[in-house]
Amino acid sequence: MLNEKQIETMIKAGRDFMKMPHEDPDYKSDQDLKKQQPPLVKEAMGGQLIDLPTDFSDLNLENDFMKIINTRQSHRVFTSQNMTLLELSFLLWSTQGVKSIRGKSYATIRTVPCGGARHEFETYFVVQYVEGLEKGLYHYLPMTHQIEFLSPVEDCREFIDKSTAGQTWCTKASIVLYYSSVFYRAEWRYGVYSHRVQLMDIGHVMQNVYMACTAAHLGTTAIGYIDGDYLNAVFTLDGEEECMICCCPVGTVDAKNQQAEIDFYAFVKEQGL
Amino acid sequence: MLNEKQIETMIKAGRDFMKMPHEDPDYKSDQDLKKQQPPLVKEAMGGQLIDLPTDFSDLNLENDFMKIINTRQSHRVFTSQNMTLLELSFLLWSTQGVKSIRGKSYATIRTVPCGGARHEFETYFVVQYVEGLEKGLYHYLPMTHQIEFLSPVEDCREFIDKSTAGQTWCTKASIVLYYSSVFYRAEWRYGVYSHRVQLMDIGHVMQNVYMACTAAHLGTTAIGYIDGDYLNAVFTLDGEEECMICCCPVGTVDAKNQQAEIDFYAFVKEQGL
Repeated sequence: MLNEKQIETMIKAGRDFMKMPHEDPDYKSDQDLKKQQPPLVKEAMGGQLIDLPTDFSDLNLENDFMKIINTRQSHRVFTSQNMTLLELSFLLWSTQGVKSIRGKSYATIRTVPCGGARHEFETYFVVQYVEGLEKGLYHYLPMTHQIEFLSPVEDCREFIDKSTAGQTWCTKASIVLYYSSVFYRAEWRYGVYSHRVQLMDIGHVMQNVYMACTAAHLGTTAIGYIDGDYLNAVFTLDGEEECMICCCPVGTVDAKNQQAEIDFYAFVKEQGL
Repeated sequence: MLNEKQIETMIKAGRDFMKMPHEDPDYKSDQDLKKQQPPLVKEAMGGQLIDLPTDFSDLNLENDFMKIINTRQSHRVFTSQNMTLLELSFLLWSTQGVKSIRGKSYATIRTVPCGGARHEFETYFVVQYVEGLEKGLYHYLPMTHQIEFLSPVEDCREFIDKSTAGQTWCTKASIVLYYSSVFYRAEWRYGVYSHRVQLMDIGHVMQNVYMACTAAHLGTTAIGYIDGDYLNAVFTLDGEEECMICCCPVGTVDAKNQQAEIDFYAFVKEQGL
């Protein structure tokens, strides 16, 4: 159990990590040193490739921007209906889609911003309820806007429960998006100063999950709390060069469940807060 | 100058900070310990209060969600035209607006998500070109959707240049939004484990700056690199309990400057990357 001194030290370290550091003006990143840059994306991992549909005009998207801003909320009550492959494609495009390449192969320009356009994140997901897709683990290939099927999952609810470290409400999601960082992609450019910005950058991605879900009448909640070791093992990440950092369950929702959403905060009333 | 061993240690510490920690199951946050929760927002700092207009239907917003997703880009070439007070109000609302209060005073529910709805961020900004507003420093009051005028700034370009640690392209922005964290607001609930999630959460906010700017035909780039000490001093933050962490310059843009935007990356071509 953490003692008072340890807690104090951790709070100070956490705050310091968030602050703009006093950078060493002589520090040179690997990019400064003209070292070879790492690949822009992870290669396909050997799974079966599946092309994604892209005629997003077939989606009945909410197109009132103020309404999207004002109705976005964190959803935790999912109705476990099938999502369509087009909806899945739309979510992947809106959050990590590659619009163009800068230079020969310097950077991917995507639907979300990222420090130095390093785009150090990989998108994995578990499919529980998607029309036409087998239940199992998948990996997004942003360069070709494809997905690859990695392996089937027998009991998705158990898998999701474990992966979210017991956040049982997630288990009714249609999919859960899991984000890893391939750390060196950002470190190559920003070196020892990259990690603070990487966390801001995954926040950009997850906010677009929210925005795209709201536009597509789906629900999500961004989650920083995961079982990283379990997820790394299952998706065969080494946890050192590439490591899972957060996730977003996405599911179908129904307005009639708004009271159930509020009931997640029953403790506020109970405690008179 | 950092030596190899120090660099290695910093890279490891940065990566570890990004990973889901192995939490001490017996750790109790101040909320767990039923300690008094901190105020939901910072009080007004004594500046002149200004009400913000809210009839956002008067804005000529882009309402095609796919177009917003697909045309969002980082803008660094600003045309230094006046923004309107309504546009400023729209940006503040879209990024930190308070939609409701949970419980008596347990949490603010805002237009962006935040871990535990702690909303530990304060929004400050410098006004350079906003119709009807004096050039100077301001603070957003989300509870009443007002701003307060803190102090005039004679040379906004010099101020912006200093505050962004010499990123001169920012100096043509109409406003620069500066975000601080009031750390304890999040620490009260998540304690020693709060800081990683705080950085994700400010990413949510900055992504909404991008989305709102795109909808309102304005430009922005999220910036993690600031002169924190300078900004803390100017906005009278102690840098310990409350500290500046990042900023977003926002400006008017013109499609005819797209080549100038691309020229920021001339080194890619020069270096054959």
